[in-house]
Amino acid sequence: MTKSDALRQNYNKLLSKSKEFILATTIHSLVEWDMETKMPPKAVNLRSQQLAMISQLEHKLSTDPEIGDLIEKIRKHPDYDSLDEVEKRNVHLIKKNYDEMTKLPEELVTEITRQSAVTVNVWKKAKAAKNYSMFKPELEKLVELKKKAAEILMEVKGTATPYDALIDMHEPTMTANMITKLFDELRTGLISIMKKCLASPKQPDESFLSRKIPVDVQQKISSSIAKIIDYDIDSPNAGGRIDETEHPFTTGYYDDVRITTHYFEDNFASSLFSVLHEGGHAMYDQNLRAEWMFQPVGTGCSYGFHESQSRFVENIFGRSREFWSFYLPELKKLTGKTYSDVTLDKFVHAINAVKPSKIRVEADEVTYCLHVIIRFNIERDLFADKITVAELPEIWNQKYKEYLGVKIENDSEGVMQDTHWGLGYFGYFPTYALGNIYSGQLLAKMQKDMPDWKKHAAKGNFQPIKQWLTKNVHSYGNLYDPPDLIKKITGEQINVKHYLEYLNKKYSDLYGY
Amino acid sequence: MTKSDALRQNYNKLLSKSKEFILATTIHSLVEWDMETKMPPKAVNLRSQQLAMISQLEHKLSTDPEIGDLIEKIRKHPDYDSLDEVEKRNVHLIKKNYDEMTKLPEELVTEITRQSAVTVNVWKKAKAAKNYSMFKPELEKLVELKKKAAEILMEVKGTATPYDALIDMHEPTMTANMITKLFDELRTGLISIMKKCLASPKQPDESFLSRKIPVDVQQKISSSIAKIIDYDIDSPNAGGRIDETEHPFTTGYYDDVRITTHYFEDNFASSLFSVLHEGGHAMYDQNLRAEWMFQPVGTGCSYGFHESQSRFVENIFGRSREFWSFYLPELKKLTGKTYSDVTLDKFVHAINAVKPSKIRVEADEVTYCLHVIIRFNIERDLFADKITVAELPEIWNQKYKEYLGVKIENDSEGVMQDTHWGLGYFGYFPTYALGNIYSGQLLAKMQKDMPDWKKHAAKGNFQPIKQWLTKNVHSYGNLYDPPDLIKKITGEQINVKHYLEYLNKKYSDLYGY
Repeated sequence: MTKSDALRQNYNKLLSKSKEFILATTIHSLVEWDMETKMPPKAVNLRSQQLAMISQLEHKLSTDPEIGDLIEKIRKHPDYDSLDEVEKRNVHLIKKNYDEMTKLPEELVTEITRQSAVTVNVWKKAKAAKNYSMFKPELEKLVELKKKAAEILMEVKGTATPYDALIDMHEPTMTANMITKLFDELRTGLISIMKKCLASPKQPDESFLSRKIPVDVQQKISSSIAKIIDYDIDSPNAGGRIDETEHPFTTGYYDDVRITTHYFEDNFASSLFSVLHEGGHAMYDQNLRAEWMFQPVGTGCSYGFHESQSRFVENIFGRSREFWSFYLPELKKLTGKTYSDVTLDKFVHAINAVKPSKIRVEADEVTYCLHVIIRFNIERDLFADKITVAELPEIWNQKYKEYLGVKIENDSEGVMQDTHWGLGYFGYFPTYALGNIYSGQLLAKMQKDMPDWKKHAAKGNFQPIKQWLTKNVHSYGNLYDPPDLIKKITGEQINVKHYLEYLNKKYSDLYGY
Repeated sequence: MTKSDALRQNYNKLLSKSKEFILATTIHSLVEWDMETKMPPKAVNLRSQQLAMISQLEHKLSTDPEIGDLIEKIRKHPDYDSLDEVEKRNVHLIKKNYDEMTKLPEELVTEITRQSAVTVNVWKKAKAAKNYSMFKPELEKLVELKKKAAEILMEVKGTATPYDALIDMHEPTMTANMITKLFDELRTGLISIMKKCLASPKQPDESFLSRKIPVDVQQKISSSIAKIIDYDIDSPNAGGRIDETEHPFTTGYYDDVRITTHYFEDNFASSLFSVLHEGGHAMYDQNLRAEWMFQPVGTGCSYGFHESQSRFVENIFGRSREFWSFYLPELKKLTGKTYSDVTLDKFVHAINAVKPSKIRVEADEVTYCLHVIIRFNIERDLFADKITVAELPEIWNQKYKEYLGVKIENDSEGVMQDTHWGLGYFGYFPTYALGNIYSGQLLAKMQKDMPDWKKHAAKGNFQPIKQWLTKNVHSYGNLYDPPDLIKKITGEQINVKHYLEYLNKKYSDLYGY
């Protein structure tokens, strides 16, 4: 056996260990999907034990000391450089995961899991009672534990701050400093667009969007939307399906990627845009390179890039005038006479109405990122010990006033509206806005590569757009970290300008400012 | 630590290891359920890898050498007799499973798994081509492998023959000799009843059973039937659900037991009786003692006992004149005018029509066990080397002629009709008929304990019947082997007489012989 043979053997061994871990995560996702969609309610306790067993298995597989040995042997091997780019990336990603999983003391991980369960449970009650003082002591404990973990991860990852270590787990190599700069520019631009829209005499009439559409008709709309974006739920080789849950989500891996939506009789647009949004996520997972299945590179690049795909399909394609010039007649056919009186102009303005609001998940395209920026600023300062958990409501309410001009009446519609912090998800929020920034940059590049993309959209032909996204985004999988990937695709660093330009053009047309 | 403390500690450790294994099997069932009901078709390959991983986990958990050590320590402990009946049974059941899992050479197990996959695959093709000679060589290989395994299991279990070892895996402690005696008596009785029915001038008109009932109406019928037998699929604490698959089945554990059915527009009775049958299985799994959850005793006694519950609900309750005196008016309400002209007499005779046929799964209550007996006789002689795989079609066809008076035209409607042998399931078939024998014996006992059970049935009140079954069958879980359990419940050995008496009474009433 030559030295190189040994390297190859160790690499293959490492990959097969990694594959076991990935396979276990796919089982985990499936069992969670069932819990959200099909599980008989009585099974709650049984299910939590099943999920605990799978988590234990994942933990065991990903912290196997042999993984550490193999990584060490491979990286120190004199022929290490003979590995190609994909192989090196796989080793890097396995090492990253191994370090994250093994360097935190087990007691701390257990304590965080326990405290998260307590905190999210108290959050539910506190939110129902509109009482932040119930939530505060448990959130304080959780933040302290997360700070401890973040400090250890900072050492492991070599980031400048503990919060950067948390960001890195969602948007690898990005930092709070980079994001602050981007978000400051984004905020200024968004507030300017928002103000122009609000000041315009041309305001949309949204009232017709609450006309009742029966659920079975909405299901047909979902199917037809899925067909348009090539999310296959029907064919004998379909790799997806649509089910109903309270909150829409996407889950799965390669050949089995499922989305959910929620049908409201008096808000058909909600489920329609959910299908476009989740379908965008699903498209990413389904169009990764087949030969990378079960390799660490065979996954999306980051939370932010994932969001760029869902927002691209939902907003850039799905709320465009061009798409609706094609789809409004289809919608009218599917809904009988419900929308026969509504013109394209009125419809497109209504689904793109700009309305500063208190609730992030209901926000429009222009104000959405302002909600995210508020959360990011708070997280950043909280983990830098500049503010305390006790001060969160005051800061929250003040920022909502300042950015969005809305007055928060109580903490349930304010600082307690999202589940993320109660679950200990810190470093996650900024990726929502980063996704939008990426989507604008991708659009600018696609516009150059395929100037007539709007003509395709106007024919309901998503294929060329999907092909462009697959070639330029999906096919790279997790080969690069986000800052490198956006550069690779567009030739420039992450840049807020394109997203703002897209919005400015779109909303000045809509609002005539 | 006293000696007894050590015994207690080892017992608890053994139970917690067994619990892990049981939990893994529940994950396995769930993932298989998804494969049969919801999985996008493209996921086939991914799913087989997920299932292989779970099987591997189950194998690892159940063959952990520490289990062997713990069993040894517990059984040899001087205070072993201080364990109570349930505890001793748990140790026995864990030992049985451990022996079955560890005593077979791994290569043989792998080879059987591989050959089963090949054989069942060839079976599908051979069945489609009506060509037994395609199937034969692969079935021969599989039978040879199963014989090898059965010989080893015979040593492990101390059974008289290899085939008895296979029976023991489905119907513990039963033997081919015992079953032969039972089945000879059963066959004689059934053929006599069948002949009387066929000779009677009073023959049922079944034609109205093929009147079309739309699937959504059939789904409502399913729900109403589920409600009657107390199979909860709707309430906020429901522990079940009904989905559609080609072949109906039941799967799950305690608080999550799911059934499936199949809707045919022109055969509503098919899905109705499937819901009753599978609902009977589900009732058993859902009504085991809660405190035995995750213990080996917390499961059904045997395949045969499980079938006794499904056949009891489907046939003894579900095809009784009394039940239909209540339910036919309900059915008429649910199906508009479709059945307005059909009388109770005609309806009950139609759903109990006796018709010798070639296909087991379509057989009526009287002829069903004859199909099973043919398979048992063949299996028994095959494993005793009295007949060869090459001779199966000839023997099969001859027995169908002899027992049922039907002429098999080709092997697809003959020896290749069932999937069991292609999958290597030997020792399984007899449990289908044993279940019917038990059901007759249970009925005789229930009749004594609750002479007015038919009055309840005539009110659509299944509760008292379910309570009797729970007290007398479900609550014993797997505390006894089948011969001991039937004795415990009824005071006598397994006895064909009661089932034949039940049939004779029912069918002489129906056919007026």
